[in-house]
Amino acid sequence: MSRVAIQGEEGSFSHAAARQVFGPGVEVVVCQGFDELFAAVAEGGAEAGAVPVENTLAGAVVENLDLLVRHDLHVTGETRVRVELCLVARPGRTVTDLSTVASHPVALRQCRGLFARHPWLKPVPAWDTAGSVRDLLTGEAAYDGAIGSTLAAEIFGGSVLERGVEDDAENHTRFFIVGRRPGPRPEGPARAALIFTLAHRPGSLHGALACFAERGVDLCRLESRPIPGRPWEYRFHLDATAADIDALDAAVEELGALAPELRVLGRYPSGA
Amino acid sequence: MSRVAIQGEEGSFSHAAARQVFGPGVEVVVCQGFDELFAAVAEGGAEAGAVPVENTLAGAVVENLDLLVRHDLHVTGETRVRVELCLVARPGRTVTDLSTVASHPVALRQCRGLFARHPWLKPVPAWDTAGSVRDLLTGEAAYDGAIGSTLAAEIFGGSVLERGVEDDAENHTRFFIVGRRPGPRPEGPARAALIFTLAHRPGSLHGALACFAERGVDLCRLESRPIPGRPWEYRFHLDATAADIDALDAAVEELGALAPELRVLGRYPSGA
Repeated sequence: MSRVAIQGEEGSFSHAAARQVFGPGVEVVVCQGFDELFAAVAEGGAEAGAVPVENTLAGAVVENLDLLVRHDLHVTGETRVRVELCLVARPGRTVTDLSTVASHPVALRQCRGLFARHPWLKPVPAWDTAGSVRDLLTGEAAYDGAIGSTLAAEIFGGSVLERGVEDDAENHTRFFIVGRRPGPRPEGPARAALIFTLAHRPGSLHGALACFAERGVDLCRLESRPIPGRPWEYRFHLDATAADIDALDAAVEELGALAPELRVLGRYPSGA
Repeated sequence: MSRVAIQGEEGSFSHAAARQVFGPGVEVVVCQGFDELFAAVAEGGAEAGAVPVENTLAGAVVENLDLLVRHDLHVTGETRVRVELCLVARPGRTVTDLSTVASHPVALRQCRGLFARHPWLKPVPAWDTAGSVRDLLTGEAAYDGAIGSTLAAEIFGGSVLERGVEDDAENHTRFFIVGRRPGPRPEGPARAALIFTLAHRPGSLHGALACFAERGVDLCRLESRPIPGRPWEYRFHLDATAADIDALDAAVEELGALAPELRVLGRYPSGA
């Protein structure tokens, strides 16, 4: 069975991502920080890692883009998790029994509607979503409700009083699955994750994107990150999808002739 | 005299940016958050604002990119501030007199070398760099040193014991100057700040960049931000420079024919 490193608690959205890819029986290696997650995969404490790289409300998780640069891991797949928040209580309680509801401050701010509908509920900040559910159910908490995933409620034996309590339902996080070895070359529709630099002159990015555009290869994502020690110079993170892996490979080969630095983080089946 | 809104304290790097543009006598309107800064300029509490948009170590200040989208302000110029950190003490003290040194946690982590050279110094987290210097000099602080700008030391009467104590000297922040009205059309070398969206199809970004590449217009910066409510769609923030404003205007006009949404945040002299 796969041991998969995640940042955060059991029952977190990272855990949900690991289950989507490796099945409900996946064993997760819980890491406090993303640094620790990358180290766990690199040093063999886990066979794979689930790394959030992008959220549809917050944008890129830049810390992880930078960690992908610094580590020599391979991207073997990706998965998208819908961030659905739930109001969780101890079994047998109803919403009128509650007075304080804990979660991560970002999650609390994403649930203004819930607190408006039930104005007697007081939001209480906690370290994270899944941890607030765990502490509620293990009896260590000074609050009587928590906001987290259905997975956290299921794992820790909480009762889900309301599902989808987040204000904006279009809240999704995209995760890369990383490992020490590259995945097999995909057949058919494929996606590639790349990192590259370019000479700083007019038209250089346009020229780089031509490699993809001329072959009908679709860019899903282009991010630029500063290069430490080289002010106003950038490293690009690009994800591209093609109906045909040969087109993708040809685009990457042509880019390699232009880019002073090019690294293929991984190629994997599109939609995987 | 110009009243310029900044986020943070007097003596902060935002204050330094405002002085670089408006002179040492500039009157700053101190705002707690960036939301408040944008509101101060929009509602007339300040004539201009100094908005950090990018740092050479941390990357884009995405909160401010999103605020530029939501507000109807114009970018009238830009300035770049070198983030030089100093060890500040009360007058008459030397480094061997100190035991605790306060600053913002990010600044403390950027000064590992200082704490290694003077191992008796203990770092203490504070709300911000300039505020830690102010509290040290007004006698309210429980610590006896602070890390902040030379400007903060000057304003609050501190003694600079060491300059340039940051580990990475290539630490610069770029600020937009924003106002309620557009600046005059620049003559000669010019820069433009734009926001646009594109149809999601292969080659659309490549086609957009062609407008600039074909005229030798240089892209200084391209950022993408998620569009709330439209998962996996992006709004682009682009800064471009040209030796000739006519080339820049022609590129923007051509882009306008391709982009469902295009807004020129501002045009201003390059190097201003």
